[in-house]
Amino acid sequence: MTMTDQSLQSFLDAVASAEPAPGGGSVAALSGALGASLVAMVCRLTIGKKGYESVGAEMQTILPRAGALQRELRDLMQADTDAYARVMDAYKLPKVTDAEKSARTRAVQDALKHASAIPMRVAELCAQVLELARPIAEKGNKNAASDGGVGALMAEAGLRGAAFNVSINLGAINDETFVREHRARVEKLLLDAAQRKNEILQIVEKRL
Amino acid sequence: MTMTDQSLQSFLDAVASAEPAPGGGSVAALSGALGASLVAMVCRLTIGKKGYESVGAEMQTILPRAGALQRELRDLMQADTDAYARVMDAYKLPKVTDAEKSARTRAVQDALKHASAIPMRVAELCAQVLELARPIAEKGNKNAASDGGVGALMAEAGLRGAAFNVSINLGAINDETFVREHRARVEKLLLDAAQRKNEILQIVEKRL
Repeated sequence: MTMTDQSLQSFLDAVASAEPAPGGGSVAALSGALGASLVAMVCRLTIGKKGYESVGAEMQTILPRAGALQRELRDLMQADTDAYARVMDAYKLPKVTDAEKSARTRAVQDALKHASAIPMRVAELCAQVLELARPIAEKGNKNAASDGGVGALMAEAGLRGAAFNVSINLGAINDETFVREHRARVEKLLLDAAQRKNEILQIVEKRL
Repeated sequence: MTMTDQSLQSFLDAVASAEPAPGGGSVAALSGALGASLVAMVCRLTIGKKGYESVGAEMQTILPRAGALQRELRDLMQADTDAYARVMDAYKLPKVTDAEKSARTRAVQDALKHASAIPMRVAELCAQVLELARPIAEKGNKNAASDGGVGALMAEAGLRGAAFNVSINLGAINDETFVREHRARVEKLLLDAAQRKNEILQIVEKRL
């Protein structure tokens, strides 16, 4: 059973439990997936509707992209929890002999890099959801303007939450080039997302 | 079957479908419930842990409050969708005779008031989740600092999303006193939440 086959209630309880995973990383991915789902809904409520003929084609191109983002973000919920387990397993490797010590360090560092790549991907996909949310909020069915707004909120919260999880892992990674590059990518994503979210919220407020 | 008995996948697909509900309103309530779940998790990862003896009692009082907020927000996911259906049903009432017209207007206005009370409650509960997230982020297990941060992000996004849904319904309500009072409450909640979220994110960034 994958993480998204379980009921919403089980997932909420699994997050709330004393197990560290699923935690903020998987929730951030879910937040992005929820944002993508809302974008898809507004597309469907716009395509073929009277008064929205001129934006139908644009909505038709956004819809499959939103669906693909929803699926990839959904899969990253499980991937984030698996990546955390891999880090924990690496830390548990034996560290008595010098050979064991260096093998363990290598395994831990590899696992940490993987565990930062997952939320980095979540952040990038959330940025893509925000990109789609912009035309949706602006030109989508006015009756669903608030849904586009909530979609943007979920995508931005997901991106920001994923950024936390990238940072945590970077803090323990020794490869300075990797750390520097990833920090720069995260900063750029955060900056762009904050601006885009604010633009979208202003658009939505005017259309409410 | 209630909304939270369905799988995460079904819920994502139900949001993405051409049905207007569940939409942004239910997603906002879920966002708050996810925030409350993360607050509960950080409590559990702090209580009884070495180095956190001095904050154990405080975490013990936060834990059941987070649980209660998670449950009420979860239930409001369904309530929001039901409230939307009630508004739609009221609009479908007959409006041929004068008596029918005035009965329909009354039913629509009552349904709209109910449909704004639900997201107003969601917004208030999300504000309470943010309140709990503050000491969690500040004093909870440092290893779970990012989880507290994501909890705050989800609570604030939920509050802001719920505020959109309050506004939408207020736009169609004739009772000016009701509208004025609700707008003022929402504005206050939004202002406080933005400030509190920023404080929490700064705390979390320092502890990462």
